[in-house]
Amino acid sequence: MDDETATEILEATYRALCQHGYAALTVKDIAAEADRSKASIHYYYDSKENLFTEFLEFLYERFTAKITAIDGNTPREELESLLNAVLIDGRPTPDKSFRTVFLELQAQAPYNDTFRTQLAKFDAALFDQLQNIIVAGVEAGEFDDAVEPAVAAEFLVTTITGAHARHITTERSINRFNETVTRYAETHLLTDAPAEATR
Amino acid sequence: MDDETATEILEATYRALCQHGYAALTVKDIAAEADRSKASIHYYYDSKENLFTEFLEFLYERFTAKITAIDGNTPREELESLLNAVLIDGRPTPDKSFRTVFLELQAQAPYNDTFRTQLAKFDAALFDQLQNIIVAGVEAGEFDDAVEPAVAAEFLVTTITGAHARHITTERSINRFNETVTRYAETHLLTDAPAEATR
Repeated sequence: MDDETATEILEATYRALCQHGYAALTVKDIAAEADRSKASIHYYYDSKENLFTEFLEFLYERFTAKITAIDGNTPREELESLLNAVLIDGRPTPDKSFRTVFLELQAQAPYNDTFRTQLAKFDAALFDQLQNIIVAGVEAGEFDDAVEPAVAAEFLVTTITGAHARHITTERSINRFNETVTRYAETHLLTDAPAEATR
Repeated sequence: MDDETATEILEATYRALCQHGYAALTVKDIAAEADRSKASIHYYYDSKENLFTEFLEFLYERFTAKITAIDGNTPREELESLLNAVLIDGRPTPDKSFRTVFLELQAQAPYNDTFRTQLAKFDAALFDQLQNIIVAGVEAGEFDDAVEPAVAAEFLVTTITGAHARHITTERSINRFNETVTRYAETHLLTDAPAEATR
């Protein structure tokens, strides 16, 4: 397979999804976005299922690259950087459209084994990265040693997932959720959080 | 309109949704579930949009009845009862199927003004009920007076929303999420939470 063309098709799938949503998406839309024929899409990906399996893998690689390429000299700064990576609108329009599509894909998971398997990897990657940072923070004494990293990471993944869903369904700004989650992390994880801000 | 028949159709819509999901649902499926003709469904609800507007209103009434009919002699017990109402599997199969459908409806919200408006009401009702309980708990001295009810309620709605989404996409038990959220509430809201459990 010509990898470059295959990747171009996945990038066109991303743009076509942002524009049309998952439910309404056709191979014709992807072909139009890639400036190719439907036949050539089918040549590279013999079924829509196969295309989506590869597409989710492509997204997963982008996602893990994003959540591991975080800045920070300390675990606290790394956590802030990670929350910014997952809860911020850098490029408002594509981010919001894509989060909308991602929620659609999540809602299809119960009906689609491939989606479910792939989406579970995103969830696990975010959990692992949060847990790694929290473990490092507790070891460095920057986070309270009563914090249980697995419990805190699990809680944060759940809250971040909820923030994404509510951002889409209620149209609240993602930045507002970022503040809420950051505030939780700052006041409940850090050692010696200021007393007036511990709740 | 014959209210009883109209309600029967909404109940049939609920069952048909649990069985087929939203994306695949047809008026024919609803008619089959209601043991009626397609024409009679159209007689009561002249469009699929109109049917779904009424259906979401019907669900909203059930939801508000569920979250206000909570037990408890104290705000703490009321909060526990509310978390049990929204995060427990009383009747495993229909609950899980329906939560799956609800996630599908949420994912359609950005494409559908009616859905978005109706779903925002569920979000607001849960927020209000949580906030009322937390205000009462702070006033009664049962919850720490440093707790800001609006902030804590907002955080809990986000986490509960995330718990529903992850329950569906990762197939984790809803009870596990209930434990996580209850633990958060117990350790971060209550006055004099045991020191070893405050994180």
